[in-house]
Amino acid sequence: MKLLLTGFEPFGELDRNPTEELVIKIKEEGFEGVDIRSLVLPVVYESCFDALKKNMDEWKPDAVLSLGVAVGRSAISVERIAINIQDVAADRSDNNGHAPVDRKIDPEGPDAIFTTLPYRTIVSRLVEGGIPSEVSNTAGTYICNTTMYQALAHAKNVSTCRFTGFIHVPASPAMTVAKPHLASMDVETQLKAVKTIIQVLKEELS
Amino acid sequence: MKLLLTGFEPFGELDRNPTEELVIKIKEEGFEGVDIRSLVLPVVYESCFDALKKNMDEWKPDAVLSLGVAVGRSAISVERIAINIQDVAADRSDNNGHAPVDRKIDPEGPDAIFTTLPYRTIVSRLVEGGIPSEVSNTAGTYICNTTMYQALAHAKNVSTCRFTGFIHVPASPAMTVAKPHLASMDVETQLKAVKTIIQVLKEELS
Amino acid sequence: MKLLLTGFEPFGELDRNPTEELVIKIKEEGFEGVDIRSLVLPVVYESCFDALKKNMDEWKPDAVLSLGVAVGRSAISVERIAINIQDVAADRSDNNGHAPVDRKIDPEGPDAIFTTLPYRTIVSRLVEGGIPSEVSNTAGTYICNTTMYQALAHAKNVSTCRFTGFIHVPASPAMTVAKPHLASMDVETQLKAVKTIIQVLKEELS
Amino acid sequence: MKLLLTGFEPFGELDRNPTEELVIKIKEEGFEGVDIRSLVLPVVYESCFDALKKNMDEWKPDAVLSLGVAVGRSAISVERIAINIQDVAADRSDNNGHAPVDRKIDPEGPDAIFTTLPYRTIVSRLVEGGIPSEVSNTAGTYICNTTMYQALAHAKNVSTCRFTGFIHVPASPAMTVAKPHLASMDVETQLKAVKTIIQVLKEELS
Repeated sequence: MKLLLTGFEPFGELDRNPTEELVIKIKEEGFEGVDIRSLVLPVVYESCFDALKKNMDEWKPDAVLSLGVAVGRSAISVERIAINIQDVAADRSDNNGHAPVDRKIDPEGPDAIFTTLPYRTIVSRLVEGGIPSEVSNTAGTYICNTTMYQALAHAKNVSTCRFTGFIHVPASPAMTVAKPHLASMDVETQLKAVKTIIQVLKEELS
Repeated sequence: MKLLLTGFEPFGELDRNPTEELVIKIKEEGFEGVDIRSLVLPVVYESCFDALKKNMDEWKPDAVLSLGVAVGRSAISVERIAINIQDVAADRSDNNGHAPVDRKIDPEGPDAIFTTLPYRTIVSRLVEGGIPSEVSNTAGTYICNTTMYQALAHAKNVSTCRFTGFIHVPASPAMTVAKPHLASMDVETQLKAVKTIIQVLKEELS
Repeated sequence: MKLLLTGFEPFGELDRNPTEELVIKIKEEGFEGVDIRSLVLPVVYESCFDALKKNMDEWKPDAVLSLGVAVGRSAISVERIAINIQDVAADRSDNNGHAPVDRKIDPEGPDAIFTTLPYRTIVSRLVEGGIPSEVSNTAGTYICNTTMYQALAHAKNVSTCRFTGFIHVPASPAMTVAKPHLASMDVETQLKAVKTIIQVLKEELS
Repeated sequence: MKLLLTGFEPFGELDRNPTEELVIKIKEEGFEGVDIRSLVLPVVYESCFDALKKNMDEWKPDAVLSLGVAVGRSAISVERIAINIQDVAADRSDNNGHAPVDRKIDPEGPDAIFTTLPYRTIVSRLVEGGIPSEVSNTAGTYICNTTMYQALAHAKNVSTCRFTGFIHVPASPAMTVAKPHLASMDVETQLKAVKTIIQVLKEELS
């Protein structure tokens, strides 16, 4: 299996983004029987999909798995659907200072696109492994959703690409030390979760 | 330092109580320069303090550190105060089926007693170590609060006992797999937190 | 303006559904310049849309406004999108005992359909009027979402129907008296909110 | 019954404090069989109790009922206990710019003092009346708790004063319009709640 794995650079008040750490660690460690290419994407509406698109076109992965952090969530969220909207809260522009409101990602595109990940199997396997997990019905309207939407739309043109989707991980403890009322999940556990997901994809493809 | 460390047996819908696991692990691993005695207390209003009292009286510890789990919290909570009340929600009796409402723990006792733990130092050290932590102003009105109140009241009679107090840990991931909206904290991180607290107590006593 | 206004019967542990009360009150009071027809729909996947469809076809409304209650939310939610999925939590079947998992509402339909309500204007007007409100990006996967999806899909065949969409209201205080940690909103305030929304639709159509 | 009723001036980011509105309205409307004196207290650690103390000493009320707002709570909270601590989060000083950390209100005072309100009866009556309500075990460590602690301590010296205590009300909708994830409660419902509480006190005293 050829797996294109993406994380994001830090954004907002974050110094670090655990998804960057996750994709680097998994690339370094490797995964038996899986050829992994990893990317760290910019948190910018306009360019978040550029490198991902290029790698989908040129490398022809079997699966595209994107990771983002969802501050406030307490479980691994497997996103069910990406919607054709870019919309930020008033005070939270992207890393280039852009803050669209109710703007379509693709004016010609469908209103939303379902993930092609085997999301129910993934959640079951994570839960069996003792990792809190659920199917999520909204990936938000920020860069995560835009990346997911664009990857799913483009995957229809990449014949190899059987699985495409997005996983939201909780904040890491390092992100919440000053905000004790927010849930977090250890990066070690997040890493274990991502490896479980890769294992599920590998099994489904074999 | 002689440290009396307590956890609790499971209660309610729980199969396991992570605090039981924590006190067993710490006892097994040991801690340099600290003589540890560990107890697993029953989740019963009437008897939760029995073994703890006996060990305080006979062993004369320098510190009593009690651990309990607070489902729904996301950070290590260092409890500031125990109050002289036993009160359960209608549907949540103790492990003996008792469910007191607005009953005093000690009809002659003070309304509440402050912890003697160096709580601000503990929280600072945990946060420095990357572990979400905060001072909590309520230990509830269930067995945890009763144990804390009784230990603090009794510590006034145990001349060696300089530090007495209670720590609430979040649910473990094993406890929230079926409840993905609840926060959790890895038992490994909880263990690291308890060790940090023991280290603070050791430094303060030396 | 001809307005088709819908609420739901009670479901789950509810004795009453505030949306039933809302549509009855608004129908009784009337609204100047608006011809209102009101329906109380069953909380049943299979039949929730039947009466609504019939009234859309025969009465040819200018607008279809559906109301549902979202326990746990604290603001009036104007739903942005309905998704082509029926999925319940394990323990929450519909009023006929059905509990589909990851089932498409319409196997031939699009993955999701955007509301045609002027959602941003509605939220602005509610907020100006002092009523907490927001655009929501998920209407869930229960009966509310199914009704919204089916109404939006069918509205494409009803030439008069310019505005179609769904509003989630918070629980009423009567629903949360025994659950004090859940947010609620007075039915009087909910009523004021619905009237504000009808006023916006009337202005937009004139 | 002579009732001394207090609210607070606005603080932090608030333009208005609903408790100010509540005490003014109740004073204006009056309450049969109850002689009401109302005060709006400053949100200042040092002086919050000054006017209240003066009125307790000179007017000799039968009951002192203080109201404060607790942003984020969803039910009327009848506070069970006030603790002998002043402590603010780093970024939230009082209206004079003071931000004490772990400071005792009264270095000679008890660690905490129970309310003398008939709190269980109050909660039952509110719930019967359809108003979400609960007993709270922490009044925080800000001005509300300081006022409650000082009033309870001083009430021991005022022989007439049979009932003394503190009620936290949720934010008003006006306070949460820009924060749709926070719970609120209509001021009309808050007013109904305070009247119910006054009725309970009147009945208990007669």
